[in-house]
Amino acid sequence: MNIFLNFASILLYLAVQCQGSGTDIALDAKATLLHRIDSLNLLIYTCLLTLTVLTIWVFKHRRVSWLHETGLAVIYGLIVGAIIRYAASTNQVTYINVHPAPDTKYNLSVPPDMLRLHFPDKMQVSSGDAPVPNKTYAYSFRGEIVNVEQNEIDLKATFDPEIFFNIILPPIIFHAGYCLKRKYFFRNLGAILTFAMVGTALSALVIGSLMYGCVQLMPASLASSFTFLDTLYFGALISPTDPLTVLAIFSQLKVDVNLYAMIFGESVLNDAVALVLSGAIQNYELRYSNDGGFEITAFLGAIGDFIGIFSLSLLVGALMGCLTALMTKFTHVREWPLLESALFVLMSYAAFLIAEVCELTGVVAVLFCGICQAHYTYNNLSSDSRNRTKQLFELLNFLAENFIFTYIGVSMFTFPKHHFDPWFIIAGFVTSVLGRAVNIYPLSFLLNLGRKPPIPMNFQHMLFFSGLRGAMSFALAIRNTVSEARQAMLTTTSLIVIATVVLQGGAATHALAYLRIPTGESGNDENDALPYRDVRSLYQATDSAGPPADLGFGLRNMDSTQPASCDRAARGRMVVKWANGAKEVIMPWELNGIEDTPRDRGEGSTGQKARLARLWGAVDSKLLKPLLTHARPPLTETLPAFMRPLARVLTTTHQYTQGDNSLRRTDSDSDLCIDEQHPIPTSIDPQLSINVRNGYGHV
Amino acid sequence: MNIFLNFASILLYLAVQCQGSGTDIALDAKATLLHRIDSLNLLIYTCLLTLTVLTIWVFKHRRVSWLHETGLAVIYGLIVGAIIRYAASTNQVTYINVHPAPDTKYNLSVPPDMLRLHFPDKMQVSSGDAPVPNKTYAYSFRGEIVNVEQNEIDLKATFDPEIFFNIILPPIIFHAGYCLKRKYFFRNLGAILTFAMVGTALSALVIGSLMYGCVQLMPASLASSFTFLDTLYFGALISPTDPLTVLAIFSQLKVDVNLYAMIFGESVLNDAVALVLSGAIQNYELRYSNDGGFEITAFLGAIGDFIGIFSLSLLVGALMGCLTALMTKFTHVREWPLLESALFVLMSYAAFLIAEVCELTGVVAVLFCGICQAHYTYNNLSSDSRNRTKQLFELLNFLAENFIFTYIGVSMFTFPKHHFDPWFIIAGFVTSVLGRAVNIYPLSFLLNLGRKPPIPMNFQHMLFFSGLRGAMSFALAIRNTVSEARQAMLTTTSLIVIATVVLQGGAATHALAYLRIPTGESGNDENDALPYRDVRSLYQATDSAGPPADLGFGLRNMDSTQPASCDRAARGRMVVKWANGAKEVIMPWELNGIEDTPRDRGEGSTGQKARLARLWGAVDSKLLKPLLTHARPPLTETLPAFMRPLARVLTTTHQYTQGDNSLRRTDSDSDLCIDEQHPIPTSIDPQLSINVRNGYGHV
Repeated sequence: MNIFLNFASILLYLAVQCQGSGTDIALDAKATLLHRIDSLNLLIYTCLLTLTVLTIWVFKHRRVSWLHETGLAVIYGLIVGAIIRYAASTNQVTYINVHPAPDTKYNLSVPPDMLRLHFPDKMQVSSGDAPVPNKTYAYSFRGEIVNVEQNEIDLKATFDPEIFFNIILPPIIFHAGYCLKRKYFFRNLGAILTFAMVGTALSALVIGSLMYGCVQLMPASLASSFTFLDTLYFGALISPTDPLTVLAIFSQLKVDVNLYAMIFGESVLNDAVALVLSGAIQNYELRYSNDGGFEITAFLGAIGDFIGIFSLSLLVGALMGCLTALMTKFTHVREWPLLESALFVLMSYAAFLIAEVCELTGVVAVLFCGICQAHYTYNNLSSDSRNRTKQLFELLNFLAENFIFTYIGVSMFTFPKHHFDPWFIIAGFVTSVLGRAVNIYPLSFLLNLGRKPPIPMNFQHMLFFSGLRGAMSFALAIRNTVSEARQAMLTTTSLIVIATVVLQGGAATHALAYLRIPTGESGNDENDALPYRDVRSLYQATDSAGPPADLGFGLRNMDSTQPASCDRAARGRMVVKWANGAKEVIMPWELNGIEDTPRDRGEGSTGQKARLARLWGAVDSKLLKPLLTHARPPLTETLPAFMRPLARVLTTTHQYTQGDNSLRRTDSDSDLCIDEQHPIPTSIDPQLSINVRNGYGHV
Repeated sequence: MNIFLNFASILLYLAVQCQGSGTDIALDAKATLLHRIDSLNLLIYTCLLTLTVLTIWVFKHRRVSWLHETGLAVIYGLIVGAIIRYAASTNQVTYINVHPAPDTKYNLSVPPDMLRLHFPDKMQVSSGDAPVPNKTYAYSFRGEIVNVEQNEIDLKATFDPEIFFNIILPPIIFHAGYCLKRKYFFRNLGAILTFAMVGTALSALVIGSLMYGCVQLMPASLASSFTFLDTLYFGALISPTDPLTVLAIFSQLKVDVNLYAMIFGESVLNDAVALVLSGAIQNYELRYSNDGGFEITAFLGAIGDFIGIFSLSLLVGALMGCLTALMTKFTHVREWPLLESALFVLMSYAAFLIAEVCELTGVVAVLFCGICQAHYTYNNLSSDSRNRTKQLFELLNFLAENFIFTYIGVSMFTFPKHHFDPWFIIAGFVTSVLGRAVNIYPLSFLLNLGRKPPIPMNFQHMLFFSGLRGAMSFALAIRNTVSEARQAMLTTTSLIVIATVVLQGGAATHALAYLRIPTGESGNDENDALPYRDVRSLYQATDSAGPPADLGFGLRNMDSTQPASCDRAARGRMVVKWANGAKEVIMPWELNGIEDTPRDRGEGSTGQKARLARLWGAVDSKLLKPLLTHARPPLTETLPAFMRPLARVLTTTHQYTQGDNSLRRTDSDSDLCIDEQHPIPTSIDPQLSINVRNGYGHV
């Protein structure tokens, strides 16, 4: 590879030397070389990903659990990054200093977009060959050069950081939203929102303050380059957690759905919160403050920024999702699944673009668009499109995730703007752990005051332990590396990401066992395509099997709110496996059967918790679902009398004609969690579900 | 949209004016604005594609046949392009002329990669505000400015032409290769290769020569700017045909598979040929010739270039395809379909990148990689991955195709480098028609001399009529627009593409009826996902129904070579519909049933034609398929005795254990053409297939 590059350079050199007359030809060769280097960069990552895929397969095949796929991607990235760094030839970039032409008239305070250079003009150009003809060349603006001495701009195997926000993150975040299991998400909405909104802000503030304190104690060279806003920005970017390693293990081991929902929901939302929060801090820095000091109006402005951008992005995403639902409901585009899938993809991408055009946050819009698409549009799609969109985004998500983790590894060595400062790194590690603790424990304590089934301590420990840092932190850190402070942040963030993903990710299975969090294993265990598909609510199971005392209390209370309608247990016995190895077999009739709707059972005793969820549920089931999908009851039944004419227009014949029992069939929650390849007829048959509920199921 | 842009400009202006001290802030605002404009451009295309999808749905719903989806995309593009052109504010780019700093030492004959500008330095910068601090900015090389007077560089809704070769074309071409029905492709290999290789070269030469003659007759202003190489390049880029509109109609109307295979195969291969050919012409121009005259060594060099690049690209693609097949055969990655699909996508993309890194043609590599993936790897994939990869590339192909046609429409108005020259345009239209005629009729005549079932005249007319120009021509034309000659070529190519796609595409149904080419219609007609899936060989049908005399001769002879193993006719009666409206019902027993292998029936009489196919078939079925897939017979039976140990290593237990009757099941041809959602068990049951062949099927 490097030999190849050197060879190419020699070829280029020869081309330049032999054909001194042909500047055009030399330029052409240069363009070709650049294109080849670009291709080579991409090829390196493609090969790394291929290698990762093959190794993941070997690991899955041999049931290796001490290293997860993302950890693997990072480690491969590190190895290849080191090879590139120390083996490849450096790619010197030629440059000259220029002055404006004497007669230039230019009266803007920003530098011009383009420069025009007459070359070679009066410059001394080498070689006794034919003279180089004078030509005019265009140069486009790139950015400020901070360190004028640094004359080698090394572009080995690196990309513009903006690709993360525009290409890599959107499919990951959309997929997260599209896979969010809404039933459990809404059930734990209070906890999730508290952890994600309050917790992230708190964590950012704590980390920012602590880091500022630490920086002040450090050698003056670094201390002077950090403002409080800088460390606060660091706090914001290091606060969001990345769940994927932990969740993959959860999914494999079939951990409790509520824990899964809390960790997944929190990590998805705190990515969005951190992104908007860091934007608000940066805006504060740029717009309001010239001296880094505190100004109350500026502070309020930043908070306004945060709330405004977050909610408007949410609105854009949700509206585009609902619009897609309307399109798929009122047209018969489902007869042509290819067109339908294309429409789905285009509308989701449009949500991202509209938010970006409006100076909102596209990633946040795409998240809420994904949630709406799953909640409404998914019900209207043909089964072909359901499969296709799920599989498409699953694949995109897989490739994008592994790419970003590989890139984190490679860039550790090849990205030119790293700044290693041991004290800052140590402080970063310590404060990020503290920040996570401040996020989880006090807020859990407060939540447990008002929450009837409290979050048990071992769940809290697991929430704390799941605080891996990942793609979002890295993308935010690499976005801006102009100052030394920012470069130190990037280095620290990269190291924190690598350490947490490799070490914490690898230790997650042991942590589950140590914390005695029950895990289950159903009949077929090769299905881990949809993150939620194999996660079971095991309350019944653990209850009857006599779980540890400290766990039992919380679980017995939560029990009545836990429907098991998504269990595929009805198809066969379920094996409960404690993470420490013990196994128990639960027969289907030991599990609670299929319940009707999540809101009409056993909620009386746990009223407080579900108030938000219940309000939302009412609006959703009476207004939004009948409007946006083919779900029953139709709007003609739920809307007040004076709106009947409108309601009639918005109701499809399909909605009138279908029986009440098909309500469940079109409900997206059950659709998403039932394995589509093996639908369970019993969950649709109302007669059987009543039997199961009444306890007659185990004849 | 435009209001929005204007508003944004005003905001930017205000930001610049109000905060004269903050160049950084102004720059930041400028970067934001540029990002928003980029997003807006993408949004325009996303909305256009959404609109196209919805309109296609309406057209399909209302069975409109006079305008095809690609035509629709072009027309929408034209409308929006016109709106952008005449309604949007122009986006002035600021620029200044620069000179090298007095003390610059620089001794290369190529212009430097970077310029550094100290800004504002001694320049007069406006406003009585706080002075702008001096900073150094980097500028990167963009290219030569040919027309120094042209100071407005308008970037409205346009993209770098290289995206077509690196992002848009690869999935289209891969999908074409992946969908190529190999049985019929190999059966018509002689004709396809003749049309694609000889025909395209001939067409390029004829068009190039005629155009050169025409240009000499034109006003001197244009004539002087064209060399013979320029017109030859035009010939090469306008020669490849784009089949998609015609093929979509064929697929809808279920036209004869052999005609389909010829048109599809030719158009796929001639894209590859034209791409390599135009590269060779450009290399000839760049490397060998300083005066545009003819040099025999240079000419031979160009031919060597062409053959070398084409065959090496083919090799790279085929090797990567075979490597994927080996990986999927000898690992059990199929147990994890997500990993398997990721591996498939990564390896295919790696084929493209490796070819680009080696200065070969990535698009050609990707084509042959796609063919190999379909022929070998596809047999090893799990059914989940088969579906997923097919659906993924189908969707990508759909989006990419519609994007490129929309872009052709929009760029007609917004691309700044168009040059309208009426005479050149008229000459282009006339010669491109003549070039197509020279490609088809003489070569068909020559082919018919050696080909026992000749290509009937109405098929020849249809081949001639299917000569639409499309994506490849446009991508080649827009790649290089430095000179006035090249700009005139782009304009002419765009117009030819638009005219052929809209007019010829719309008239294809009528052409089929006029030429009395039989079309069929099976029971369910909503399945047009795979281009080949619904195409039937209707020879039997037309034979027994008494086709017109001129058609009967050729068909009766071709009859014996036409297996109907892909017909789903066995499932029910088939309706033959002549394009002029008449319908006939054919019962399944009137059609020839299922045959065993394509090589062991009725080939004796048509020996010449199939020699190439037979040689290939032997190598393929005895060596490659047993090596690369789980197909029977295993290598242990087909290889000579001394290679048995090696053969044993390369044979999987799966290959040993499966019965002979599952050969058909793992054969990719039948797999690809049988509708996977409704597999026909009869085609796998050897007993029944014998019955059908012996005429006992119609009990």
